[in-house]
Amino acid sequence: MPELRHDPIQRRWVIIATERGRRPDDYPRQEESLPGGFCPFCEGNESKTPPEITAIRRDSTGPNQPGWDVRVVPNKYPALRIEGNLDRKGLGLFDRMNGVGAHEIIIETPQHDLNLADASVEQIQKVLRIYRARLQDLLRDLRFKYVLIFKNHGASAGASLSHPHTQIIATPVTPLTLASELNSAKEHYLDKDRCLYCDIIQQELESGERIVVSDDHFIVLTPFASCFPFEIFLAPRNHSHSFAEISDDMLPRLAMALKEVLSRLKKCLNDPAYNFLIHTIPNTKSRPRRANYWETIELDFHWHIELIPRLTRIAGFEWGTGFYINPTAPEEAAKYLREVEL
Amino acid sequence: MPELRHDPIQRRWVIIATERGRRPDDYPRQEESLPGGFCPFCEGNESKTPPEITAIRRDSTGPNQPGWDVRVVPNKYPALRIEGNLDRKGLGLFDRMNGVGAHEIIIETPQHDLNLADASVEQIQKVLRIYRARLQDLLRDLRFKYVLIFKNHGASAGASLSHPHTQIIATPVTPLTLASELNSAKEHYLDKDRCLYCDIIQQELESGERIVVSDDHFIVLTPFASCFPFEIFLAPRNHSHSFAEISDDMLPRLAMALKEVLSRLKKCLNDPAYNFLIHTIPNTKSRPRRANYWETIELDFHWHIELIPRLTRIAGFEWGTGFYINPTAPEEAAKYLREVEL
Repeated sequence: MPELRHDPIQRRWVIIATERGRRPDDYPRQEESLPGGFCPFCEGNESKTPPEITAIRRDSTGPNQPGWDVRVVPNKYPALRIEGNLDRKGLGLFDRMNGVGAHEIIIETPQHDLNLADASVEQIQKVLRIYRARLQDLLRDLRFKYVLIFKNHGASAGASLSHPHTQIIATPVTPLTLASELNSAKEHYLDKDRCLYCDIIQQELESGERIVVSDDHFIVLTPFASCFPFEIFLAPRNHSHSFAEISDDMLPRLAMALKEVLSRLKKCLNDPAYNFLIHTIPNTKSRPRRANYWETIELDFHWHIELIPRLTRIAGFEWGTGFYINPTAPEEAAKYLREVEL
Repeated sequence: MPELRHDPIQRRWVIIATERGRRPDDYPRQEESLPGGFCPFCEGNESKTPPEITAIRRDSTGPNQPGWDVRVVPNKYPALRIEGNLDRKGLGLFDRMNGVGAHEIIIETPQHDLNLADASVEQIQKVLRIYRARLQDLLRDLRFKYVLIFKNHGASAGASLSHPHTQIIATPVTPLTLASELNSAKEHYLDKDRCLYCDIIQQELESGERIVVSDDHFIVLTPFASCFPFEIFLAPRNHSHSFAEISDDMLPRLAMALKEVLSRLKKCLNDPAYNFLIHTIPNTKSRPRRANYWETIELDFHWHIELIPRLTRIAGFEWGTGFYINPTAPEEAAKYLREVEL
């Protein structure tokens, strides 16, 4: 019997089509490949990107020179523009504003073919430190309500260059999915004086069946109402509302957890395309949506990473309805991922 | 300057990346093809599908025989099962229920290679009549809260067989996107005593810039805050809440409007893959979500069809945030579609 499951965060029902019971081998690898040839992200080609915003450098080399470990540049084809005012305007029933925002690229390594799963913990830690630094910096701009940090790995995940990179988009609005999460978390907190995510983590630790890996600091699990096969949720074990405030001590722990889950996914599913996205609180310094909204946000929201391997196609049905059919139960996915030998 | 636009129905912001300004030719046709060989939906192969539920037959042929124009069969690999009780259950913070529902296939024509855009108005009318009949029938089952009618055309839209067909899924919950629409429409009605969709249609007719085609009965337009390039909205001009109640007089009108927009899309974008979905009211006979919810539904909701050509890939970013980047402004898309010579 298939099962319907409810996601208490997105308040969305998902069909877990257990009868189909697709195993890792049942997901054929999508053979689309990315264009080869000249790569503007490789070391030595610094002049082919817009001037760098920041970098972690090995030696005392200057900006836009070789010698870097992680490098941040503006997106050459930005979805949003950094210059200008928001210029909000109503048009009858509709509303518009200027597309003001930031769109940056974090080049994760000078090595063109390095899979993030195979990078050293030290290298991943440098990438995470840059995430934090860019997030902190962009949050100083009061025009931006939200800063999205996300990675597309592989052509079928939407990557257009194969050199490992992450994108950052700072937006003048809080994206809908994040707003729903924030609302669910806030309502739960106002009801119960507890964080919804802490409660879920506690329940998952007690059951254990959806845990992929966990230690004293981070937990990696497959959500109860996963929309996609092998969907992953990674969060700090202890309550923490903002990725911008992650401590130096926690960075190597997070790098280890991330490397472990990426390595397990790579081995289990033959290096699948994937997307990940950091969910953190909106910019509390920007104009609040309503009074008191921010009052409890440090207590009610819990930052986390959502990772979706791109194993199935998102059909229009699923996009158009917000109703997903997942052919691998998350308990099965977690079991496969736990059993991978690294 | 890119522009942010707000969708008053989904309450979602969209980036209209006008600077990218992609024209129809800028969307390369995705060359994925569907498997050839034996087709269980072709005339003569009736024994290869589960026994038919209903059909429109040319002659007095019996069920599961050749001689049909449109044929409805259960999905051989259903996402939901028709048998059983809902068996709702809480699991700590989570909720589950049995995957009870219906999953049917409407085979739109006996002709394997007939593109719906090229079918006769009479044939399309028969397909629409079957949609209505199945919707009416499934709404009698009080276990079902919603009946989804949707079509995937082309491999990149999620179709797994190329013989033209539509799917129907009856679900024991109202899908999230539909629930949001219903809520927006209800709040607008409670505020203003007018239908939100009627208001939008009126505003769009006055502006004209996003209209693709319209007559006295149906309007086809590209929504102001389209998430996808060449996204289409088709609705009756006059208020009407349920596709199940469409009159016999309106069926040929709708068939004409649908044929026209499908033909324009096919010509303009070189037969793109697409999905369409009928948005109608939930099953008012099933257990209501809350008291008074249904009281004004016939006044506040307006049935319509949403059609999304699959020209770009839905990246994880867009799925994960509910925040879309559309590289073709809807005014441009409408202009291209209007200018197609049929």
